[in-house]
Amino acid sequence: MEQKRYKIVIDTLGSDKGPEAVIEGARLVLEENPNIDVILAGDEELIKSKGLPEDRVTVIHAPTTVTNYDNPVEAFYKKKSEVSVFKALEETANNDDVIGMISSGSTGALLVGTLRYLLDDKRTRPALAAILPNTTGNFTCLVDTGASIDCGPTQLMEFAHLGSDFMRRLYKIESPRVGLLSNGAEPTKGNKLVKETFKLLQEDKSINFIGNVEGDKTLNGLCDVLVCDGFAGNQVLKNTAGAAVNLITEIMKFGKMTGNDMICKQIAGHIMKTWDFESLGAGIMLGARKLILKCRGSSGASAIKNAAKILINVHDNKTVYE
Amino acid sequence: MEQKRYKIVIDTLGSDKGPEAVIEGARLVLEENPNIDVILAGDEELIKSKGLPEDRVTVIHAPTTVTNYDNPVEAFYKKKSEVSVFKALEETANNDDVIGMISSGSTGALLVGTLRYLLDDKRTRPALAAILPNTTGNFTCLVDTGASIDCGPTQLMEFAHLGSDFMRRLYKIESPRVGLLSNGAEPTKGNKLVKETFKLLQEDKSINFIGNVEGDKTLNGLCDVLVCDGFAGNQVLKNTAGAAVNLITEIMKFGKMTGNDMICKQIAGHIMKTWDFESLGAGIMLGARKLILKCRGSSGASAIKNAAKILINVHDNKTVYE
Repeated sequence: MEQKRYKIVIDTLGSDKGPEAVIEGARLVLEENPNIDVILAGDEELIKSKGLPEDRVTVIHAPTTVTNYDNPVEAFYKKKSEVSVFKALEETANNDDVIGMISSGSTGALLVGTLRYLLDDKRTRPALAAILPNTTGNFTCLVDTGASIDCGPTQLMEFAHLGSDFMRRLYKIESPRVGLLSNGAEPTKGNKLVKETFKLLQEDKSINFIGNVEGDKTLNGLCDVLVCDGFAGNQVLKNTAGAAVNLITEIMKFGKMTGNDMICKQIAGHIMKTWDFESLGAGIMLGARKLILKCRGSSGASAIKNAAKILINVHDNKTVYE
Repeated sequence: MEQKRYKIVIDTLGSDKGPEAVIEGARLVLEENPNIDVILAGDEELIKSKGLPEDRVTVIHAPTTVTNYDNPVEAFYKKKSEVSVFKALEETANNDDVIGMISSGSTGALLVGTLRYLLDDKRTRPALAAILPNTTGNFTCLVDTGASIDCGPTQLMEFAHLGSDFMRRLYKIESPRVGLLSNGAEPTKGNKLVKETFKLLQEDKSINFIGNVEGDKTLNGLCDVLVCDGFAGNQVLKNTAGAAVNLITEIMKFGKMTGNDMICKQIAGHIMKTWDFESLGAGIMLGARKLILKCRGSSGASAIKNAAKILINVHDNKTVYE
């Protein structure tokens, strides 16, 4: 039986490591997945100079990027035909062979483009979720992680529904447990937004609400979906990643200091593998008609390769990380 | 020359570990610091049953605690004469021999009591700061960490001033670098609160504002004072502490799995010592007339002992951790 073939769109611009790293990532995707073809948006000349297999690569010339300093809405209306992330999303929306898209550029631009081309009919705005490995060996869907920085309670309710739908569909969890990120476990804890959302979540019988979850328990598997505004979600991701990097650095230093380099290197490697910190930054747009993956701004070739793997697994309705 | 003598007030109620653990902490303080006498607020009978040296211990009978489920303002007006944290703060305010107070109970109650008895004339509300060891070997003052959960830009400006004053006084940093916690380093990043505060910080020439700081750089020593609302600050502390606990657990598991128990135990111990996670939860009230220390809710005897050490060091104008 012939293997199922996929098409994936990759936005080659926007990574802090430059388009070369992303194109190298596309090469790895092609090498490791004979059943995948790619559509690359970016600088045509640069992409073509890299000698990727021509029969498996389509190039969309869109040499402009939207940086974190630009206003993404303005960028969309002024120059959408030349911006790689917008062209990539347009292609994803219009090409039936495409299963999804990967970008490591501006979250704001990705959001605006998704909203314009790929928003699910039932939604007003997509959310950016992170599917994080937790300490029980399962996964927690953290939503939102940066698509909506300022939120109201209604939006947080929508995150609860989007996250629940996703975990139900992907992980076959019949009634996903939804937690609300707060500054204390008690129902009285929270800022104004959290307190108001708490009440709404309690009233909504279609949500399996388990109450507030504190910041030191985010990855402890207390819930399947952890709801928060995009500012707080960004903190959870970055605080955790930052602490991990600092601890791994500390372990390596300790190894050098005490002559235990080898074992410390092994430990660091084990932690990286178990916790998969690179993936902490790989987000999934919920509420979009196709799979849109957002990699960290600092993504290199291997992050792109991993993102493609996640994308295929999610599309095949398998566990996200396997 | 006779050693300088101090009096410290300790609220024995409110710790998750129970009053016994806190009283045991008071015993350690007395044992290790012959120049310190303590005033203990709590259940008189229980305290007296523990056989602490009577000549160095004064007991204030106040057997009631304010939990995280109570409304602290209501608790203050209804039963302040029997609540340990309020009696402890009252004593701290009125007794000239007392240099400061330690509590591991409800932050809200501590805040209400400080506001009522010990607020600095120039301030409208105290802030709860954490003095965190950063990766450059120096300290970062994170403010606020939970005293003010919902904030406006004016409050964040006050945090910037309180934090700068503290770092100037304690660490002799002439012009403390102030960072603003955000979801991106660029000036355009942030929620509404952060964006408005960014402008105010830029305009205030008495503040050495260095711009936005991302969540993965909080402990990297980019700034001496990191400003945020209490909800976000609580996340920074708890996310970091949670990640550390999870990583240390993972290291120990790896040790067992691979037969490297000994070295992994050493590494875990080294990390705990270098990063001093217990202290991540020990906060200092800024804007109060005396030193008010807030330990984590999960504080045991050693946390109380460490808090007393911090209190004395801060009072003597020494480095906080030495």
